[in-house]
Amino acid sequence: MTAFQKLVAHSKTISNFNHLAAICGWDQASMMPSGGNQARSEAMAQLSVHIHGLLTQPQLEEWFSSAESENLNANDKASLRELKRQWMQANVLPESLVQAKSLAGSKCEHAWRSQRGENDWAGFEKNWAEVVKLSQEEAQIRAEATGLSPYDSMLDIYEPGTTSASLDTLFSDVKTWLPSLIDDAIEKQKSESFITPTGQFETAQQKALGLEVMKLLQFDFEHGRLDESIHPFCGGVPSDVRITTRYDDSEFVQSLMGIVHETGHARYEQGLPKSLAGQPAGEARSMGIHESQSLFFEMQVGRSDAFIQHLSSLAGKQFTSHDPALFGFDNFQKLYTRVKKDFIRVDADELTYPAHVILRYEIERDLINGKIKHSDVPELWNLKMQQSLGLSTEGNFKNGCMQDIHWTDGAFGYFPSYTLGAMYAAQFMMSMTKTIDVNGAIESGDLSPIFTWLDDNIWSKGSLLTTDELVKQATGETLNAQFFQDHLKARYL
Amino acid sequence: MTAFQKLVAHSKTISNFNHLAAICGWDQASMMPSGGNQARSEAMAQLSVHIHGLLTQPQLEEWFSSAESENLNANDKASLRELKRQWMQANVLPESLVQAKSLAGSKCEHAWRSQRGENDWAGFEKNWAEVVKLSQEEAQIRAEATGLSPYDSMLDIYEPGTTSASLDTLFSDVKTWLPSLIDDAIEKQKSESFITPTGQFETAQQKALGLEVMKLLQFDFEHGRLDESIHPFCGGVPSDVRITTRYDDSEFVQSLMGIVHETGHARYEQGLPKSLAGQPAGEARSMGIHESQSLFFEMQVGRSDAFIQHLSSLAGKQFTSHDPALFGFDNFQKLYTRVKKDFIRVDADELTYPAHVILRYEIERDLINGKIKHSDVPELWNLKMQQSLGLSTEGNFKNGCMQDIHWTDGAFGYFPSYTLGAMYAAQFMMSMTKTIDVNGAIESGDLSPIFTWLDDNIWSKGSLLTTDELVKQATGETLNAQFFQDHLKARYL
Repeated sequence: MTAFQKLVAHSKTISNFNHLAAICGWDQASMMPSGGNQARSEAMAQLSVHIHGLLTQPQLEEWFSSAESENLNANDKASLRELKRQWMQANVLPESLVQAKSLAGSKCEHAWRSQRGENDWAGFEKNWAEVVKLSQEEAQIRAEATGLSPYDSMLDIYEPGTTSASLDTLFSDVKTWLPSLIDDAIEKQKSESFITPTGQFETAQQKALGLEVMKLLQFDFEHGRLDESIHPFCGGVPSDVRITTRYDDSEFVQSLMGIVHETGHARYEQGLPKSLAGQPAGEARSMGIHESQSLFFEMQVGRSDAFIQHLSSLAGKQFTSHDPALFGFDNFQKLYTRVKKDFIRVDADELTYPAHVILRYEIERDLINGKIKHSDVPELWNLKMQQSLGLSTEGNFKNGCMQDIHWTDGAFGYFPSYTLGAMYAAQFMMSMTKTIDVNGAIESGDLSPIFTWLDDNIWSKGSLLTTDELVKQATGETLNAQFFQDHLKARYL
Repeated sequence: MTAFQKLVAHSKTISNFNHLAAICGWDQASMMPSGGNQARSEAMAQLSVHIHGLLTQPQLEEWFSSAESENLNANDKASLRELKRQWMQANVLPESLVQAKSLAGSKCEHAWRSQRGENDWAGFEKNWAEVVKLSQEEAQIRAEATGLSPYDSMLDIYEPGTTSASLDTLFSDVKTWLPSLIDDAIEKQKSESFITPTGQFETAQQKALGLEVMKLLQFDFEHGRLDESIHPFCGGVPSDVRITTRYDDSEFVQSLMGIVHETGHARYEQGLPKSLAGQPAGEARSMGIHESQSLFFEMQVGRSDAFIQHLSSLAGKQFTSHDPALFGFDNFQKLYTRVKKDFIRVDADELTYPAHVILRYEIERDLINGKIKHSDVPELWNLKMQQSLGLSTEGNFKNGCMQDIHWTDGAFGYFPSYTLGAMYAAQFMMSMTKTIDVNGAIESGDLSPIFTWLDDNIWSKGSLLTTDELVKQATGETLNAQFFQDHLKARYL
């Protein structure tokens, strides 16, 4: 075996343990009764330590140095680059920190499930202080190893190549045009009338509708499932992708589009190159690219007129005891493009969403760089929310800084991916329409040409290319936020 | 740390990985889409190898020899005995065999799920030949290490202390009185008339009914769940016990009592001593004792007049659109005590069940001892089924030797536990009635006194005692099959 082959075999071993972590993590969020949490958290922490041990085995250094002088083709070179990236990131951290953060994150997240409903900031803060402290330690260690700032070193986990300097520029620009665009859209929609769902929408029927929409989006049910969890996510492994949603029986609108969103994540995972299964090069390129796929499904396809037509028709057939006017195309279009300044990011519309992300970005950047303390967060949140969307969150923690799961378990550096994803998605759509009749495909109900484009240009590439290379090969240029602005203006003005 | 403490800490590590194996195994049987099987099997095999590696670490030998001269109290001595038992069993097998058997078993079991329905013996045999071959190799290696016969060395995994010599004696005795008892019961029931379920019994309603019965049996839903799988089982971990059932929408009788059975397994797991969590001494005593708990729930409690009264009443309240006469007490009693010579073990009544077990015992004993070949099994099955229950399984593989999951994944030596369990259960009930008004407790709907007895005498003991000690402490004597025979005669004659 060559050193490169040894590295690949070792990577497959790690991938097998990651498989178990993914399934048990999904189970913890969607199936596990609450009394099972302590033992599960301990088992998951043990697994984390084991995986960390595999990633940090001493012989790997020698294998990497040998592999670099081996004769490798382009794919293998890319694979080696990603293996090395993964290895370097893992070797930065001491095992004790990995374990402590995993335990603190599990504990905080589990308690958060009930604390959020109780608006219990004091209770939450006790657990969260430890998560923040350990995350700052992690960032400091990563910063020393990479020469980046602490926050940028966290960002690098999710978005290799992206820095807070570039995000500051990008988001400053967004802040110049977004507020007025939001106000204009709200002004334009002010006189619109529409019907909101009332009455009861049975979970079983919502699920049946969700499954129909997943079929339309060609989700592969031989390699995945739909379940429920408090915070919707896409988990599992490429051969068995687990997406979740949450149902509210007083309305179906959020959950239905949430399923479209997670199906985008899922199809990316299901479309990753099977020949590279178990290798980092066979994994998704970055969180931003992952989000570009879910937002391509949700925003570019899901909110197009042609797709809204399908949604309204399918929903009308499911909920026959409700007022048929609710399921008219016009009404659905209004429901799904309504702009409103509100508290909850996951329920936010396409236009206010970037404002939520920028708020979180600015806070987590300063928190991880040690410029602010965890106890400053509620006040800062309130301040920035007032500035960006004119809303007060004073004393309203559950709809403020306690609303998201990301910080709860220490995933700092992740939030920018959402808006990067929205920008990439707009750019992909702009490029796709040059060669494909996207509207015609959606109208026909056979969306295959769209998925073939995504598979050819994004999914099947895994991490063989860098993000910039991937986007340039697919669209002819690297990230250009103008497409996002154009898309929003076209839809909302 | 003393050597004993090191062994306990190491055992907790192993237990954490077993936790992951249990949850992913449950998922594989109850949640996983079929396309996920290959990657899952590989991940599970990798985990098996890892656990095997932990069980066979070289320093353990030294720790065991040091621990034996340490000052230990009675509980710690018992814990050490069980740690050593687990260690010796694991160290017998080479890692390559563990991995090969895990892969072959997963492959065979997964294919069996569809092959059984298709009666595809030829297809099944291709995979199964490998499982049998590897199991024979395993038994041979275990036999050389223990000085037992190959089959007895497999039996020792599930029933420490039990030999085929003792089973031959026990089962020979059963064969002297069982056939005539079956015939007499059938003759007695011949003139009885009763109503069998017809029409549709919705899965959702069956599940709701099952959950109500689990509540009556005080299943702890904070530490467990009910789901579905092809072959019902009790899995998970003591802090999170996963039981499964399968629903047939043309009747509810089998599934309902299946839930009672699995709840017995589950309450044993939920009642294991928490202070010994993660140590072999904190685990269930043996498969026979495990089955004694499920059969105590199913046969001793579940088919008592007082419990049948609850079942009939709860079912009647659930299925209100059916003929109320179906849910009369007399009718339920007849449905649940009907004796019939039939093909399927898991659907067999209490009286013919031991005949099924004895058939499997005799075949697997000879198969593992190399006296017969895997290709002989269908013919032998047919022969023995004709002798014991007068039924032909010629060409009817799916209702013959392909009906069970146990052999499919190589769990040879397990079947005798079912009948040992039935015998222990009868003995426990006989003893319990001396101090507790069992019928009164069941009638009242508060079965706590029964569960307290089981908890005190069985559940909370884990594996601190040997099986013989456990049974003697609980009932005043070791296994005495006369109680089983008395119980059957009292119920069926």
